[in-house]
Amino acid sequence: MKPTPEPTPDPIPEQKNSPKKAKAGRPSQDTQSREQLILAARSLFVERDYAQVSTRELAKKAGTDPALIRYYFGSKEGLFSTMIRETAVPVKQQLWQLNRSLGADGPANFMLTYYRVMAAHPHFPRLIFKLASLDQSQAKNQELAQAFNEIINLEDLLFFDKFKSQGLLREEVDSRCAQLSFFAMMVFPFLVPDIFLNKLGVEISPEFLQQLATQNSQLLAHGLFKPEVTSHEPK
Amino acid sequence: MKPTPEPTPDPIPEQKNSPKKAKAGRPSQDTQSREQLILAARSLFVERDYAQVSTRELAKKAGTDPALIRYYFGSKEGLFSTMIRETAVPVKQQLWQLNRSLGADGPANFMLTYYRVMAAHPHFPRLIFKLASLDQSQAKNQELAQAFNEIINLEDLLFFDKFKSQGLLREEVDSRCAQLSFFAMMVFPFLVPDIFLNKLGVEISPEFLQQLATQNSQLLAHGLFKPEVTSHEPK
Repeated sequence: MKPTPEPTPDPIPEQKNSPKKAKAGRPSQDTQSREQLILAARSLFVERDYAQVSTRELAKKAGTDPALIRYYFGSKEGLFSTMIRETAVPVKQQLWQLNRSLGADGPANFMLTYYRVMAAHPHFPRLIFKLASLDQSQAKNQELAQAFNEIINLEDLLFFDKFKSQGLLREEVDSRCAQLSFFAMMVFPFLVPDIFLNKLGVEISPEFLQQLATQNSQLLAHGLFKPEVTSHEPK
Repeated sequence: MKPTPEPTPDPIPEQKNSPKKAKAGRPSQDTQSREQLILAARSLFVERDYAQVSTRELAKKAGTDPALIRYYFGSKEGLFSTMIRETAVPVKQQLWQLNRSLGADGPANFMLTYYRVMAAHPHFPRLIFKLASLDQSQAKNQELAQAFNEIINLEDLLFFDKFKSQGLLREEVDSRCAQLSFFAMMVFPFLVPDIFLNKLGVEISPEFLQQLATQNSQLLAHGLFKPEVTSHEPK
């Protein structure tokens, strides 16, 4: 809970078999500890809320000493933001590749590729939502705010202003309302409480997500775009 | 954290100026304390997560003794479930009256009345979402699970199976997917992190909610219903 987060670990004398030096060959016990801490953080921060998870619990779940959190990541904030950055790398890469291979553009197609990738990483939208929900105006959360801004470029997701100005949307559609409902459909399936899912008889499986993606992209196409635009979209 | 929640307060001898007796005339200091605890609970549980709020904080915010939580509500669970039940009464009443006065039926119209009522109670969907997100299989949360089931009858909200069987939905629409996206649009605007809202330039004001309601009901009508059904809906 430091007012100014330290991006670098504590200066431990490097002669002392520093884990940062152990890059070649097999993973040392120490780099395994770092990896275990990342895995423990992913598991605990997906399940519970940020403030509820203590460094002691994180270390216990990872089977390491709590001091290693400070050594590798500076603080709990540092561990959380490193974990979420490392989690984001393959997700963003897959999303980018899939978008490119499908020549996907527009929110309906983006939603298809997004759900397809998130089916393999269902914890990711939940983590991003939690990260975004922290009070980023607080000094202690600045490191987390920075991680959020590095991972998510919200500008890239603001499709609807562009579509509005291109005259593709129905006359009555407000682009901000459209954007908000688009975010709702993207994020909510990964946040929805089990009690709702059980009542609906739904499991957030890859198969269900694929079906939901197809239907939601149709919902957007019919519900927000002019009929003559929709009829040109791939079915 | 009792395995079996007690619905009644501890048996304090009634001769001793019990607050339960002070029903007539001005509110006594004690009934004011009960009210202050309800208000403190609403404020703290809206802002923060259930596990993060302690009875000590609740009492401090209410300006009362923590022992009164046990006296009036049995436990933190009891205070939370009582607060949410009492919060729900006017919300559900307004929703029912508005639905009746507008002769509203169907999800598009329901969404209009729902947003109109929630504009005056923006904390309510958030509290319900938090209540629904608690692990209700845990014994300590049973009292909360019971409150949830009393307040929300999910069956009443499962419109889309009925519409599907009445042949009103587009052929390709799956009623479970439709239902999930309907819930997403209903709940997400009250959960969305400020960082998204700021980027969108949106404030969740009554005016914005009215606009969103109108647009989302159109989105559902055009996106899920057969065109011949939609054309009969009020514009």
